[in-house]
Amino acid sequence: MANQNLTSAIAGAGNAVDLLRNSRSGIYVYPVVAPEFSNWRSEQKAWRDTAVLFDQSHHMDELIVEGPDAEAFLAYVGINGFKNFDLNRAKHFVPVTPAGHVIGDMIIFREREDKFVLVGRQPTANWTKFQASIGKWNVRLHHDPRSDSRPEGERVLRTHYRFQIQGPDADKIFTELNGGPVPEIKFFCVDWINIGSRKVQALRHGMAGAPGLEIWGPYKDKDYILSTILEAAEKVGVDLRRVGSRAYSTNTLESGWIPSPLPGIYTGDGMMAEYRDWLGADAYEAVGSIGGSYVSPNIEDYYTNPFELGYGFYIGWKKDDFIGKDALTKLKDAPSNRKKVTFEWNPEDVMKVIQSNFEDGVPYKWIDFPQPNYASSSADMVMNGDKMVGMSMFNGYSYNERRVLSLGVVSQDVQVGDVLTLKWGESDETQKTSTEKHRQADIRVRVSDTPYAREARENYADSWRTKG
Amino acid sequence: MANQNLTSAIAGAGNAVDLLRNSRSGIYVYPVVAPEFSNWRSEQKAWRDTAVLFDQSHHMDELIVEGPDAEAFLAYVGINGFKNFDLNRAKHFVPVTPAGHVIGDMIIFREREDKFVLVGRQPTANWTKFQASIGKWNVRLHHDPRSDSRPEGERVLRTHYRFQIQGPDADKIFTELNGGPVPEIKFFCVDWINIGSRKVQALRHGMAGAPGLEIWGPYKDKDYILSTILEAAEKVGVDLRRVGSRAYSTNTLESGWIPSPLPGIYTGDGMMAEYRDWLGADAYEAVGSIGGSYVSPNIEDYYTNPFELGYGFYIGWKKDDFIGKDALTKLKDAPSNRKKVTFEWNPEDVMKVIQSNFEDGVPYKWIDFPQPNYASSSADMVMNGDKMVGMSMFNGYSYNERRVLSLGVVSQDVQVGDVLTLKWGESDETQKTSTEKHRQADIRVRVSDTPYAREARENYADSWRTKG
Repeated sequence: MANQNLTSAIAGAGNAVDLLRNSRSGIYVYPVVAPEFSNWRSEQKAWRDTAVLFDQSHHMDELIVEGPDAEAFLAYVGINGFKNFDLNRAKHFVPVTPAGHVIGDMIIFREREDKFVLVGRQPTANWTKFQASIGKWNVRLHHDPRSDSRPEGERVLRTHYRFQIQGPDADKIFTELNGGPVPEIKFFCVDWINIGSRKVQALRHGMAGAPGLEIWGPYKDKDYILSTILEAAEKVGVDLRRVGSRAYSTNTLESGWIPSPLPGIYTGDGMMAEYRDWLGADAYEAVGSIGGSYVSPNIEDYYTNPFELGYGFYIGWKKDDFIGKDALTKLKDAPSNRKKVTFEWNPEDVMKVIQSNFEDGVPYKWIDFPQPNYASSSADMVMNGDKMVGMSMFNGYSYNERRVLSLGVVSQDVQVGDVLTLKWGESDETQKTSTEKHRQADIRVRVSDTPYAREARENYADSWRTKG
Repeated sequence: MANQNLTSAIAGAGNAVDLLRNSRSGIYVYPVVAPEFSNWRSEQKAWRDTAVLFDQSHHMDELIVEGPDAEAFLAYVGINGFKNFDLNRAKHFVPVTPAGHVIGDMIIFREREDKFVLVGRQPTANWTKFQASIGKWNVRLHHDPRSDSRPEGERVLRTHYRFQIQGPDADKIFTELNGGPVPEIKFFCVDWINIGSRKVQALRHGMAGAPGLEIWGPYKDKDYILSTILEAAEKVGVDLRRVGSRAYSTNTLESGWIPSPLPGIYTGDGMMAEYRDWLGADAYEAVGSIGGSYVSPNIEDYYTNPFELGYGFYIGWKKDDFIGKDALTKLKDAPSNRKKVTFEWNPEDVMKVIQSNFEDGVPYKWIDFPQPNYASSSADMVMNGDKMVGMSMFNGYSYNERRVLSLGVVSQDVQVGDVLTLKWGESDETQKTSTEKHRQADIRVRVSDTPYAREARENYADSWRTKG
């Protein structure tokens, strides 16, 4: 009776859309890390004004790929060019299906000539494991899944701790930690720095739009590294804020990365059907959820391709072959490709939604602050009149911008400055536990660049009339 | 240099008010339990409409008091009458200072003739330990403090698990668990019931205003008990919702208990001065915080007495002696005593506060949903014009009532239905990490009965004009 794999889970639910829209796995949480260390407003403000410490030790899967064929294998699985991928570099690794649909993304580090570490959401790790299992690659894989979402007091262990220090004052802390200026590390490059008695690897990154470094090492060193960082910040007088799980996920609104595309793996024959048999019924792809106003019977309508998410320039066209190469060749410059934008939500309309929770009757879907998402993948319809022209995929309130923002994709003809309408809330009642009974609201959204620039708002300050 | 006890902590800060208003210990959290299991709106709704499971294993201290003098000792420390305190009964145990100020409260169970278990916030446990240490009582004490506020993946263990099942459908679950109707247990009485293969103690309670039972036992049984309860609920078709830490603390708004009176221990000579020397610098009383608009140089202005909190009828006047008896005798029926009420916050004014977080400049103090409190003890001024006539002490949004509510005390001349003004936010900047920079807002509040009755609102539906 119990589902054994994704194939039988889909069959049990009737189809993939119904399976995912009725998932009872709850909100996709950032586990283990405290909800707030100070308060989420000050934590958001700190990544813009001073410095923040992100504890990324728990919410991502890690996949280690090593062996003589590691590089060739990964270059075949991902779309990315692998030229110049030396030990001092990281990449934003993106695999697609043979049809060219994005499966997910992970950050990939090269630790040795024959050893790579991938860090991110589970779909990319699962797909990579599957490819290793069906191919004839001389590779060894080790998968360390993310921490339990609700450990309820049980101990949680990972392979690595992973911290980021970001913000305008981050370098003061690193200089103190390193006992002198840190090496000049270019964006997405890696070097070694000192933290107390440890030498640790550091990646130049900029998650919240501000520069910073990501460091990692054995999990057993976590407490030592943490206290050394906090002491260094205090010594140099930087108001370093630890960021809790409530603020954490909203940093992406300001940097423009969409963390949650639906993996395009629910359709397709041959290898794709085999993959759905291979995926367990407890995999992310089987227990994850789709939330939002967009209800299509065709699961492919929720997919994206790399051009739409802004990953077109990653593609290693010169590679002999990689999964999806033919499909991407055809999709390149296709007029049907959407483009990534930021939606700025109209404050009056947001207030209307909140206000309904002070009235009797069925309210509009609650907008939780600072993170309204209620599913592992979100798809809210973005309308121009009666026509759907886009899909909102990840939202959040930014105290820095004083706005609810969301990231998503729109048709090519939509322009920055256009005012469209986002349908907020679901038109039917699903089995999702993460949402209360609600009615649907229209929220005006202004199309803005990604990463979101406040200037966009200011340039269009008088224009909440629909222009789209 | 480091503070060793409360006395030196107060001296270091200059005075007790400055110490507590500038505490950097952060929000007083409900630790370990997941923030949400489904979503906080549905979790709140379930305690009114179906049934909820509260996991109370982590947020309260436990103090075991046993020995030949246990009863006499506790009857001396608390104000409560101890007549009829048999093994089948629990009490709401309240100690006061010699001056009659409330220190705190715990639920006290009698496990054996000579063994009591006290459960609640730390101040009552600390005071009871201190009394044992300075008196000549033949008692043994064991103190199990609440779980760490931010365990960050480390394992958390307690002496006991503690669950409550509450709500209109709770009895269906208990009947299934017990293999037949549970014994008729009167309010605050205790009996034994079956849960799977275990016999457990059950207290009749009603935290969210709905009837239910609290059960407890050895912590190692927690997983077994939890899964047995969840299976039973499923079997009888009850939509039992586990309540997460975000919704949990708001249940008290509907039942009318104030969890967080400031312990009245910062003043007084003799035994009180000795107590402040005894209390460590890491005790609740030293690291806790005062939040809110009420700023008085005199810490005693934040205190309450038992009559004000509705605990006058607990007092065991016939007892030969107990701490505070003389003071309470004088305070009884004093016209200066305030009375406990519920404040219903004006939705328009709440919206005005939220709205300011969509504007540039310094916003009003954020009202976090569903739990806006940002300190271990809250004190917001409640004004009638320029005159302070009350103090709001614990707040929260109730999805059931569609209102922000708070509990507090007002002068005797304030009447139900009066519309007063609550000052929301602090007039100065403190060192508290739990609040962002903000300005102060006026929020109209209507005085309502406690427990809050929706009828009060409906009877005064047209009356948001100031009537106080």
